[in-house]
Amino acid sequence: MPLGQRAGDNKSDSRYCGVETEFDDDMPQLLNHNLVAGFDFVLAPLVDPSYRPSLVKKDGNGSSVIPFASSDLILSPSQWSSHVVGKISSWIDLDSDDEILRRDSEVALKQEISWASHLSLQACLLPPPPRGGACGNYARCVNQLLQGTHSMQLWLRVPLTKSELMDEESTGANSNPLSKEVHDSWEWWNSFRLLCEHHSQLFVALDILSSLPSGNSLGRWFGEPVRAAIVHTTSFLTNARGFPCLSKRHQKLITGFFNHSVQIVISGTLVHNISEESLEVLPVNSDDNHSEGGAPIRHFLRPYLEYVAYLYRRMDPLPEQECFELGYRDFLQSPLQPLMDNLEAQTYETFEKDTMKYTQYQRAVSKALLDRVPDEEASTSRTVLMVVGAGRGPLVRASLQAAEETGRKLKVYAVEKNPNAVVTLHSLIRLEGWENMVTIISSDMRCWDAPEKADILVSELLGSFGDNELSPECLDGAQRFLKPDGISIPSSYTSFIQPVTASKLYNDVNSHKDLAHFETAYVVKLHRVARLAPSKSVFTFTHPEYSDNKSNQRYKKLHFEIPADTGSALVHGFAGYFDSVLYKDVHLGIEPTTATPNMFSWFPIFFPLRRPLCVPTGSTLEVHFWRCCSATKVWYEWCVTAPSPSPIHNTNGRSYWVGL
Amino acid sequence: MPLGQRAGDNKSDSRYCGVETEFDDDMPQLLNHNLVAGFDFVLAPLVDPSYRPSLVKKDGNGSSVIPFASSDLILSPSQWSSHVVGKISSWIDLDSDDEILRRDSEVALKQEISWASHLSLQACLLPPPPRGGACGNYARCVNQLLQGTHSMQLWLRVPLTKSELMDEESTGANSNPLSKEVHDSWEWWNSFRLLCEHHSQLFVALDILSSLPSGNSLGRWFGEPVRAAIVHTTSFLTNARGFPCLSKRHQKLITGFFNHSVQIVISGTLVHNISEESLEVLPVNSDDNHSEGGAPIRHFLRPYLEYVAYLYRRMDPLPEQECFELGYRDFLQSPLQPLMDNLEAQTYETFEKDTMKYTQYQRAVSKALLDRVPDEEASTSRTVLMVVGAGRGPLVRASLQAAEETGRKLKVYAVEKNPNAVVTLHSLIRLEGWENMVTIISSDMRCWDAPEKADILVSELLGSFGDNELSPECLDGAQRFLKPDGISIPSSYTSFIQPVTASKLYNDVNSHKDLAHFETAYVVKLHRVARLAPSKSVFTFTHPEYSDNKSNQRYKKLHFEIPADTGSALVHGFAGYFDSVLYKDVHLGIEPTTATPNMFSWFPIFFPLRRPLCVPTGSTLEVHFWRCCSATKVWYEWCVTAPSPSPIHNTNGRSYWVGL
Repeated sequence: MPLGQRAGDNKSDSRYCGVETEFDDDMPQLLNHNLVAGFDFVLAPLVDPSYRPSLVKKDGNGSSVIPFASSDLILSPSQWSSHVVGKISSWIDLDSDDEILRRDSEVALKQEISWASHLSLQACLLPPPPRGGACGNYARCVNQLLQGTHSMQLWLRVPLTKSELMDEESTGANSNPLSKEVHDSWEWWNSFRLLCEHHSQLFVALDILSSLPSGNSLGRWFGEPVRAAIVHTTSFLTNARGFPCLSKRHQKLITGFFNHSVQIVISGTLVHNISEESLEVLPVNSDDNHSEGGAPIRHFLRPYLEYVAYLYRRMDPLPEQECFELGYRDFLQSPLQPLMDNLEAQTYETFEKDTMKYTQYQRAVSKALLDRVPDEEASTSRTVLMVVGAGRGPLVRASLQAAEETGRKLKVYAVEKNPNAVVTLHSLIRLEGWENMVTIISSDMRCWDAPEKADILVSELLGSFGDNELSPECLDGAQRFLKPDGISIPSSYTSFIQPVTASKLYNDVNSHKDLAHFETAYVVKLHRVARLAPSKSVFTFTHPEYSDNKSNQRYKKLHFEIPADTGSALVHGFAGYFDSVLYKDVHLGIEPTTATPNMFSWFPIFFPLRRPLCVPTGSTLEVHFWRCCSATKVWYEWCVTAPSPSPIHNTNGRSYWVGL
Repeated sequence: MPLGQRAGDNKSDSRYCGVETEFDDDMPQLLNHNLVAGFDFVLAPLVDPSYRPSLVKKDGNGSSVIPFASSDLILSPSQWSSHVVGKISSWIDLDSDDEILRRDSEVALKQEISWASHLSLQACLLPPPPRGGACGNYARCVNQLLQGTHSMQLWLRVPLTKSELMDEESTGANSNPLSKEVHDSWEWWNSFRLLCEHHSQLFVALDILSSLPSGNSLGRWFGEPVRAAIVHTTSFLTNARGFPCLSKRHQKLITGFFNHSVQIVISGTLVHNISEESLEVLPVNSDDNHSEGGAPIRHFLRPYLEYVAYLYRRMDPLPEQECFELGYRDFLQSPLQPLMDNLEAQTYETFEKDTMKYTQYQRAVSKALLDRVPDEEASTSRTVLMVVGAGRGPLVRASLQAAEETGRKLKVYAVEKNPNAVVTLHSLIRLEGWENMVTIISSDMRCWDAPEKADILVSELLGSFGDNELSPECLDGAQRFLKPDGISIPSSYTSFIQPVTASKLYNDVNSHKDLAHFETAYVVKLHRVARLAPSKSVFTFTHPEYSDNKSNQRYKKLHFEIPADTGSALVHGFAGYFDSVLYKDVHLGIEPTTATPNMFSWFPIFFPLRRPLCVPTGSTLEVHFWRCCSATKVWYEWCVTAPSPSPIHNTNGRSYWVGL
C-alpha cells in the first residue's frame, strides 16, 4: 500500500515502504502479516542463517543431502518479484582470514544470488563490507555475479556513518583532515563500486542511524545510486504522545530521499513505549489461512510506518514546471546546433512559451530605449532596433511592447536565417498589423548587408553554457551594422561550472562504450546529482567588442575547494550554466544561486570526465577549460590536473563540436 | 660517426651522439662543423629566438611580411632527417599569465612543429615545462599537435632533478616523505604524459646535471620512454691530465642509457682548462665550402665526445644469451596453451637446448634415487619413474643419466599426449637402445590407466608464472598412479610478482584499443622496465597433495612498499616469475634474486593494468590475485585496492584463460 499520492510524481518508487525481517520458514505468513500492516515489501533472508556449505553432509555422489532453501512454490512468481527483496546472509565474510569461512562465504553467496535470480526477485541486499571496508575478495565475487545477472539489482548495504572532528557541520576553517583518521562509509562504497567498475546493476542501501554526518557529507549520496534507506527504529525520537518521530535533520534527509526515488525500509523492534492495546488492529485478510484464528492482529512497526507515511504526505506538491520536467530528469540530450540545423516548429513553440524570459528582454529593451532617447525626443527620434535571429517573432513582440510601454518610436528589422520561420514571421506581422514598423530580412546575420545601422541589437542566441551555440561568432558578424555607440542586448554573458557526482549520468554515457560520448557535452535536467562545490565563472563575452586583438578563443584554469566536512568525493564531470547581462541590471540566467525564476528554456549542460575522479578530503580540484575555434567549427577541450591529471578531453574537437 | 661497435648490439640508437647548439643562420656550416668533429646529429633551433608572432608586421592581406624561418633547401632532405633534431624555441611559455606571451607561444609552437614536419625531421625537442611543472595549456597544445604528427617524435625536455632529504641514496628508515615538499621532475613528465594520454610519439629527453638523485629515483626512468640524455659540460669532472671525465655514478647512469637505446647529447661550452692548441685538429672536408680557409679547425666539445665514446667502447660485450634474446626484448607474446594445443617441433627443439634446466632435473632425480634406494639395494631394487609430459624425451634422458650416475636401476614410463612427439620419442628410444628400460605411453596423463604405481613422478609443466600452464591440474590427474610415499619432481612451485613501470609494454597493449588485451598476461623478455619493489610470493602448489579439502583455487593479497627515495611512480602492471623446488635443495626458477643462471626456457610474465596507477611517495600498493577454476578452464583475476582501487581485471576469465 503506497505511502500516499503526490500530484505529478505518482510514479516514484519512493511511494513504497518496506520492512526488514528476520528469517522465517513460513514466508507466506511473514509476507501476509507485513502487507496487511501496510508495508509494500519485505526485506527478508531467503536461507536459514545457520546454513554453512562446509557443514552440509554430502551423499555418495558428492551432492548435498539437504537443500539450502525451501521451495519456490510457497509464493506465486508475482509475489516473489513484487513483494520480496532477498537479504543475503549477514554471516557471509568474503575477506575473512579464516579460509573455511571465506570459502563457505563464496559458495553461499553464489547459491543465494542464484536462488534469488531463480525466484525473479527484483533485488537482493548484500551485507556491508566488514571490518572497515576491506573488500577486495567480496567485490571480486560480486563482480563475477554482476556479469551474470542481467535484471536483478544488487544493493550493497552501507551504514550512513562518517566520523568527524565536530558532530555538526564543520564551521569553515580547515582543521587539517589528515591529522585524524576519518572513518567514512562512503569510502567503502566507493572502493566497492570502483572494483566492480560502476556496474549499472549495483546500488546502495543506506542504514540510517540515530546520528547523522554533516550535511555536506550527506549531500554526496544524492549523486550516488541509492535505492533504499533502512531506517532503524532506534533512530526515531519520541513525540509528546509517546509515538515515534524523527529529528528535523532526519526529516530533511528522508524528504530528500523521497524526492530522489529512494525507498524507505523500516528495521528493528518496537523501542517506543507503546502498549499493545494502543496499536491499531489490522484488518484480517479473509483469504489468508495464516491469520491467527480470531485474535486481533497488530504489527509492532506500524507506528513507524505511519510516521513515514505522514512525512510523505506532508511534502509540498511538485510545482507545475517540475511536473512538466519530470520526464527530462537526468536524461542526456545533445545540445542544439542552431547554426547548422534549422529548428523545428515544435521547438519554437516550446521556447516561445517561456514568458519569464521575454519579460526580461522587454525590461531590458525598455531600459535601453529610455537611456537612448530622452523624454523630450520621444516623439521625434526613431530608434533602429534589429532582432538578429528573430525566429517566429517573440523578441520582435517584446521589443514593440517595450516601445509602447516607454512611449518610444521604434523601427524594427527582424533578421532570420531559417526560411521556414520567416514564413510564420510574415504571417505574424500581417496578423498584428506591424507592417509599417517591422522589416523582415531572410538572411544569415553574418552576411546580411544592412541598409542602415542599428541603435540596438537584440538576440537570443545563448545556449546552456552561454557561448556554446556560437552567440559570439554570430554577434561578431552582426556588429558591423551596429552604430559605434549602439547597444547589444545581451551586453555580456558568462559561463559557469561546478564539479558534480552523477553516477546515473556516468552510467548512461558509459553505456555507449565509446570515447566520443565521454567527450561530448549534454543538455540535461540535473536531478540525481551532488553539487560538490559552488560554481565558478569560466568564459565571458561582451558585446559589442571593438578591441584590436579580439579573439573568441578562451582558456580558463579553475580551482575548486570541496568543503572539508564533505569527505572524499567522486567527480563524474561538471555541471555548466550561464548568466547573461541583458542590459545594466536586467539579467537572465540559470546559474543556481542567481537563476531567473520560472524559466524553462535552458537545462544545465554536463561535461563528463572519461574516468570519474576521486578527490580526497581537503584536496583541491584543478580544472582547465578551453574554447577553441577553427575556420569551420568551435569546440571545447577540458581536463583536470589536480589532484591527479586526466587526459585532455576532446582534442581538436574530435568528438564534439559546433559548426559555424 | 657512431661511438663504437659493440658485438651483438650494433643496431642500438645509443651508438649515436649528438650536440646541442645555439641558433645559427648558417645551418650547413653548423652541421658540417659538428659532423666533422664526430657528432652524429645536432640539436639545433630552427627559428631565430628573437622571433615573436605578435611583433610581425602584417601586410594588407593579413599574412606575415617576413617568413619565420629560412628555406628548406639549405640542407638536403636526408641531411635534415638524419642529422638534425629540431629544438623548439625555449622562450615559449604556454602557461604564462601574460596573455600575449601565451598566445605568441601557441602560434610559434604550431609554426615550429609544422616547419619541422615539413623538413621531415625525426624528432623535435620541446622545452621543459616552466615554473615547477604547471603545464595544463602546454600539454593541451602538444596533445593537439601529437594527433596530427604521425611519424615525428616529440621529446619533452625534463631536468633530471629530485630534491631529497639526503643527497645520496637514503639509508633505509622512512624519513616521513610528507614532512617536506619534494620537488621531483619525474612528476612533471608524469602529468604531461597523462594529459597527453601516453601518446606513443611523446618521449623524454633528460638534462643530466652535475648532481644526481638517488639510485632508486633514477631507476624509474628505465621504464619510461627516454630517448635522449643531454649531458652538460658542467657535469663533467676533471681527470689527472686535465681532461673531462664523469663521476662513477654518472658513468653508471650513462652506461645504463647505452644499454637502453638512449642517445647522449653533449651540451654547453668548454669548461675545462684545455688550451686550444691541445685540441685535436679536425680533418677538413674538401667538399665543404664553409671550412674556414686554411686555419686548423678545432671543436671545443671534442674532448667530451671522446670521453663518452670511451665509455661506450669500454662496456662489456653482450653475453651470448643476451644477444640471442635481443629480438625478444619487450616483445609481448601470448603464453603457451600446451594442454589445448600441441607444441611444434621447433618449440621442442628450442627448449631441449636448455642444458642448465636438464642438469638441474638430473641432479634432482639423482638425489631422489639416492634417498629412495640405499646403496645396499642398488643392484636389486628397481625404481619406477614416470615422466609425465615426456615430449621428445629430454627428461627421460636426464633421468637415465641420473640412474647411471647413482648406479640405481630404473624403469621409466614416458607418458606423452602429443602423438607427434611420441613418434620422435620412439625413434629416440631405438636410437639410444633404451628399449628395455623405457615404456612409451601415448596418452594424456589425466586419463592414463597405469599398470603399476610410480616411485617418482617427473614433469616439466611449469610456465613463467609457475602454475599458469596448469601443472597443478595435470599433476592432480597423475597423482593417482604415484605410490603413497612417492616423490614428485618438482615437489613444489611458487609464483612471484613485482610492480613495474613499463611504458613501452603499456603502449603495445594499448595499441590494440580493446579491453581484452589489458586483461591478458603476456610472456615477455623485460628490458625497458623499472622494477619498483622486490618481488613477493603469490601462489604455492605442492605435489603430491593428499589433503581432503584440496583445491587449486587460490587468493592472495599482497602489499608492496616502494622505497621512499624512489619518489612517486607509475605502475603499468606486474612482472611475474616462478621458483620451483625440484627436490630438496635443487631448485629451478626465474625470480630475479634467485634465478637459475644460464637458463633460457622462460621469460617473465606480465600482467597489465587497464589504467596505469600512480603510487605517491611513501604509500603502499595493495594488490589482489586470484586463481580461479571452472570445469573447463583456469584463469586469473587481479586488481589493486590501494592507493586507489582499480577495476577487477578479467572477471570470469572473460578475456584470458587457459583451457583444461
